[in-house]
Amino acid sequence: MVEDDLQLAQLLRDFAAIGGPKVLVHGGGRRATAVASELGIETRMVEGRRVTDEKMLQVVTMVYGGLVNKSIVARLQAIGVNAIGLTGADAGIIRSAKRPPVMVACGAEAQSVTVDYGFVGDVRSVDSAMLARIIDSGMTPVIAPLTHDGEGHLLNTNADTMASETAKALAAAYDVTLVYAFEKPGVLRHADDDTSVIPAIDRSDFERYRADGTVSGGMLPKIESALKAIDAGVGRVVITSAKAIDGTRGTIIQNAK
Amino acid sequence: MVEDDLQLAQLLRDFAAIGGPKVLVHGGGRRATAVASELGIETRMVEGRRVTDEKMLQVVTMVYGGLVNKSIVARLQAIGVNAIGLTGADAGIIRSAKRPPVMVACGAEAQSVTVDYGFVGDVRSVDSAMLARIIDSGMTPVIAPLTHDGEGHLLNTNADTMASETAKALAAAYDVTLVYAFEKPGVLRHADDDTSVIPAIDRSDFERYRADGTVSGGMLPKIESALKAIDAGVGRVVITSAKAIDGTRGTIIQNAK
Repeated sequence: MVEDDLQLAQLLRDFAAIGGPKVLVHGGGRRATAVASELGIETRMVEGRRVTDEKMLQVVTMVYGGLVNKSIVARLQAIGVNAIGLTGADAGIIRSAKRPPVMVACGAEAQSVTVDYGFVGDVRSVDSAMLARIIDSGMTPVIAPLTHDGEGHLLNTNADTMASETAKALAAAYDVTLVYAFEKPGVLRHADDDTSVIPAIDRSDFERYRADGTVSGGMLPKIESALKAIDAGVGRVVITSAKAIDGTRGTIIQNAK
Repeated sequence: MVEDDLQLAQLLRDFAAIGGPKVLVHGGGRRATAVASELGIETRMVEGRRVTDEKMLQVVTMVYGGLVNKSIVARLQAIGVNAIGLTGADAGIIRSAKRPPVMVACGAEAQSVTVDYGFVGDVRSVDSAMLARIIDSGMTPVIAPLTHDGEGHLLNTNADTMASETAKALAAAYDVTLVYAFEKPGVLRHADDDTSVIPAIDRSDFERYRADGTVSGGMLPKIESALKAIDAGVGRVVITSAKAIDGTRGTIIQNAK
C-alpha cells in the first residue's frame, strides 16, 4: 500500500517506535504490476483481486517475497529492528488452499461469470506456536503476502487476510492490536472528506453503512475481516492511515458498543 | 548451480535425507541473467563475478531472495524439512561491506583495469548466535546470496563465500561439514575426464596444482576458501557433484595429510 519511498521510511520509523512484540504484513501490488508490465505480462484484476497465472505467480514471488520484503527487512535492521522476512512457506507458518474457480457478479444486470483466480490461496491455518517461537526469540516477522499449500506450491494471498489471520492466531498468546494502514485516515462517512472519520464501527453499524452505501468496495472485506478478528479474540482493530500505525487515531472496529 | 528442475528435486530430496542440523546456501545466477535479459538489463561479468548496478541489485533481490529462495523453501516444506528462507539481512545474520573498486588483471599482457562491482558485498560478520538460535528452534535455514551493510542496503554476495563464512561461524558450536556442490564429481586431474577425481587436496597440493595448471578459474577461489574454512575450525570440506551432497564422494580439502 505504501509504495512512496519517503512515506515508507516514515512508516518504518513509526513501526520501529512501537514497543513490545510486533509483526508487519506488507503488500506490493503496484510494484508487482509495474514489474509484470516491464516483463510484458498483463495484469488482470477481478473485484480488486489479482488473477495469478504461473507467470504472475513468479512475478509476485519475486516482488513480494524478494524485492519488497528484503528491502523492508534491510531498512528495519538499519533502525534497530531485528526484522526477519517471511512468507507463509517459511517455517511453515501459514498454509493455504488453492482457491477453486468462483462465481462473480458482473455488470449492471448482475450476470455472473466464473473466475479462475489461478494460483491464489485462501488461508487454512497459521502455525501460531512457530510464529510465537520466532517472536519470542527476539525477531520481528515481516510477512509477505504469499502462502504455501504444503505440497510445494506457493500461492498469492491477500495481505489484509494474512494480517487478520495472523492476528487471530496470535490472540491466544498475546493481547493483539491489529492495525490496517491505508491511504485514508480511517473509515470515512463522506468519501471525499478526510475529516469525516467514523470513530467506531460495530457489526450493526457495519450492516447499516453497507445498506446505505457509506462503506463499499475494498472497505467491505476489510471491515468484515476486522469484525471476524474481534470475534476470534483480537483485542483491538484499527483502520487508519499509514501515517498513524500506532493505532491511536482512525476507526476502531468493535464487537458492540 | 542447480537450475535444472529434476536435478533440483533430487538435490532437495538428498538434502532432506541428511540427518542433524543443516543449512542450504543457494545461488541463482543463470536465472538472474535470464530475468535481467527479459527486463532488457544487460549482464556484465568480470572474472566470473556479476557487476551489480542498482537495476541488477533489484533483479538479484527478486530472483535470489524471492523466486529461487521461496521456491526451494516451499518444496522442502513439502518433503518434511522445516525450511526458513533467509538473506543475510534477515535476523541480521550476515553483514557485509560494499566492495570498493578493485584492480583486475586483463588481457594477454596482464594490463590491469579498475572494476567497480557496484552493490557487491564482502562478508564482514556472521551472527552465529542468532543462526544457532534459528537452527536450535528446529528450523533449517535456506540462505540466498544477499547480505546487508547494516545501513539499510542489500548487497549481492558470492554464494560460495557465504557458505564458507557460515560454516566457519557455526564451527565453534557444531561439528561442521561444508559441502560445495557443482557440476563435476569433484576436483578433476583432467578437466575432461570425470573419473579423474582427486580424492584429497591439502595446501601444498593446492600450490602445486595451481602452479602446474591442474586447477584454475573458478576452482581456485573455491579451494582457497575451503582451506580457510578448515583453518578456521570447519571439520570437513568436500567439493563434489550436486548428486552427492551427502559428502561421501568427491574431493576432500584438508589441512595436511
